[in-house]
Amino acid sequence: FSPGEQTNGDFVSSLPGIDLSQKNYSLYSGFLSFDGRHYHYVFVERNTTEKWALWLNGGPGCSSLDGLLTENGPFRVQKDGLLVDNKFAWSKNASILYLESPVDVGFTYSDNKADKKNVGDKTTTRDNTKALEKFIEKFPKYSTMPLILTGESYAGIYISLLLEALSTHPKFENILDGALIGNGMFDYGFNYNTMIHFANGHGLIPPSLWSNVLSDCCNNITEQCEFYDSEISDICALQTSEVMNVIFQIGLNLYNIYARCVTDSEEQMRKLIFTSAPEKMKKVFNMSKKLNMAPVCLSDYAIRNYLNKPEVVKALHVENSPASSNWTVCSDEVFQAYQKTHTSVKANLIQYFKNTRRLGTPHVIIYNGDIDMACNFLGGRDFAASLGFRMIEDQRPWLYRDTDQNVQLGGYVTEYEYLSFVTVKGSGHMVPTDQPEAALVMFQMYLEKTW
Amino acid sequence: FSPGEQTNGDFVSSLPGIDLSQKNYSLYSGFLSFDGRHYHYVFVERNTTEKWALWLNGGPGCSSLDGLLTENGPFRVQKDGLLVDNKFAWSKNASILYLESPVDVGFTYSDNKADKKNVGDKTTTRDNTKALEKFIEKFPKYSTMPLILTGESYAGIYISLLLEALSTHPKFENILDGALIGNGMFDYGFNYNTMIHFANGHGLIPPSLWSNVLSDCCNNITEQCEFYDSEISDICALQTSEVMNVIFQIGLNLYNIYARCVTDSEEQMRKLIFTSAPEKMKKVFNMSKKLNMAPVCLSDYAIRNYLNKPEVVKALHVENSPASSNWTVCSDEVFQAYQKTHTSVKANLIQYFKNTRRLGTPHVIIYNGDIDMACNFLGGRDFAASLGFRMIEDQRPWLYRDTDQNVQLGGYVTEYEYLSFVTVKGSGHMVPTDQPEAALVMFQMYLEKTW
Repeated sequence: FSPGEQTNGDFVSSLPGIDLSQKNYSLYSGFLSFDGRHYHYVFVERNTTEKWALWLNGGPGCSSLDGLLTENGPFRVQKDGLLVDNKFAWSKNASILYLESPVDVGFTYSDNKADKKNVGDKTTTRDNTKALEKFIEKFPKYSTMPLILTGESYAGIYISLLLEALSTHPKFENILDGALIGNGMFDYGFNYNTMIHFANGHGLIPPSLWSNVLSDCCNNITEQCEFYDSEISDICALQTSEVMNVIFQIGLNLYNIYARCVTDSEEQMRKLIFTSAPEKMKKVFNMSKKLNMAPVCLSDYAIRNYLNKPEVVKALHVENSPASSNWTVCSDEVFQAYQKTHTSVKANLIQYFKNTRRLGTPHVIIYNGDIDMACNFLGGRDFAASLGFRMIEDQRPWLYRDTDQNVQLGGYVTEYEYLSFVTVKGSGHMVPTDQPEAALVMFQMYLEKTW
Repeated sequence: FSPGEQTNGDFVSSLPGIDLSQKNYSLYSGFLSFDGRHYHYVFVERNTTEKWALWLNGGPGCSSLDGLLTENGPFRVQKDGLLVDNKFAWSKNASILYLESPVDVGFTYSDNKADKKNVGDKTTTRDNTKALEKFIEKFPKYSTMPLILTGESYAGIYISLLLEALSTHPKFENILDGALIGNGMFDYGFNYNTMIHFANGHGLIPPSLWSNVLSDCCNNITEQCEFYDSEISDICALQTSEVMNVIFQIGLNLYNIYARCVTDSEEQMRKLIFTSAPEKMKKVFNMSKKLNMAPVCLSDYAIRNYLNKPEVVKALHVENSPASSNWTVCSDEVFQAYQKTHTSVKANLIQYFKNTRRLGTPHVIIYNGDIDMACNFLGGRDFAASLGFRMIEDQRPWLYRDTDQNVQLGGYVTEYEYLSFVTVKGSGHMVPTDQPEAALVMFQMYLEKTW
């Protein structure tokens, strides 16, 4: 096996901002091309490991290079353009494939301009599958190595659909190991309903407003609240829209409610929340106004600055991409055009387990940083419980020993047959960014099938 | 006014670990002595300000030097014994008196050994008053300057009682400005009941256990829970004790549930929680076992190391204290001996307002870091509401512009007549430590009577 030939020059021999010699990983960057489409990937290869993982960021429309450069990749990009080693990179334990998906996200593009208008859950699942086919053609070693699907946020939908597709795919059904999905979007109803409870539980809602909500949406009983149902009363819709005003107010960082707000960021991910609201509420709530009201508090300056440098574009072999001088972390156009065909991927996940159960022990971890409000842990918990698997052990703490030898509470784990629901204490939406050490422990627990 | 004479040599001319020249504050350290008792104080004087504040840490039995050296003082002590400037010291805006109280806390001592056995809410209020009398004798300038009472945790009780006492005291009634109390203990019932809801709202309680709690303590309705009542059923007491097991488990940092756990700390403050539990629950729950189970996750190494250095003891003029070589942040003996005569200080606070309302606009801010579980914000919010003052404005966000010019959400404020309830977003028990910038903004808002 000679990487230099089979990978068509995708090997990254040097990268601005870091000295790649003496590293225990190799980098590849290039395109996986089919049907006139050119999917950009970065592969972090760790030759001593026996599994590989696909990482997908969400949006829809956000680039997985965000995962590479700010989350679980082998380095983190700094404002000054330098890359600093990440002690807790997931590539310590597996080779990781970062795929920019779907078409027109990041450096990924199509020769056919019409493709971008026809993007959605269906095309993304098909294209992700084809990109993986191309990948194992380019790197045949991985065609027999266990594959883990990982990602976060809207990737909850991407990955659930991809699991279902790959579980009957002749080239993947035998290597598909399972999935690890962080702060995932799985079910709009669960996410929306729990977001309101989450906000109240964390003191974001004025008591008098909550009292109105209880009265107008819940028969005065917290356990009877229903916010997502299209049949909610007008007055409940009004109260709920008030809650949303409170949640989306200036300065509250939705992705980590206790983190500071940085104001040079883009707005795309914010829209995810609004478009997940029930129709009735959208009418009451003036969405377009609110969307321009405030940024989402996350800074993308460092990564955008880095990936638009000509020398970086060259090092990553993406000069041919139309985005080679205007890469953005999330594509507003893709977000707008994206056809969401699923409001819940419960049936798809269950189908995946049905398809694969005969093979042994497929495994899925649904994990949530517990201080994210965009895709909050209560929604993840409810969704995991709704899948109907036999509970093996109810919520218990999971601990790890940190580098100072102190025992740390990583969060909580609930074990079901073939599925675990895990929280990561003190983390927002991007778990590997906020709690890198706990996130790596969790990834290792997945690999060892401890949970 | 010549400090050198009237302060009897208390002026601190130099202090190990920091160069005090060129600072815009002066330090004094010495004893306020009366009735054979010697209360140690450190005074941070800022001559350009027009108000002064007393700061008290809680416990009972914990030293206010913790406030000086790790919270809102002009410097922070490091592990290596150096003092680093605190950009957000409260002495930017007022002179601050840190008092080690009561007897046998820190360097404070009595000539009469029997005093330590007779310590409690009553003696502490009396002694704090006498110490303040001695202070304005030593520093007569402050006998006509507005005095603010501040502190945190059990100081909620200290300060409420002291407010009541000083509001009819001839030397203080005219200068008593109000109070600013952080994560205060005011009412054991509110604190205990809300702690369980707080734990559930933050995902600490397994869903099946919460389901049992709802059934056994709440008639299956969250709004009807009663945990503190001595008439709760045996089965509810059992379920509640299970919740306490979960809350007090190894590795969970009670004082900031999202912070890491550091294991060289003392246990005293932890006991506060247990002793606040209702009698029935204490019987079910094996307290003594649990108390030795785990540390509280806070490190006191740096401050203990610093204050036991002979050169520091000398610089602070406390060589005569029996604790001059064995200073501890909290005194276990004081905690054990302390006679708590109040389960709620609601009546005392109301009496203070009655006594002083005629003078104009006395003001109290009750503030809570919102990720502390020891004295959680829901308990503070319920207590503030229970005082029965007219609400001027329901909970709204409060914002500030940080040093990077980003607008930050500091937390939420609810304004009542003469009283504000304030949360500090993303802070645990020690607000000036966790959110120093927001804490200073809050202190300034108090001084300007903006809230």
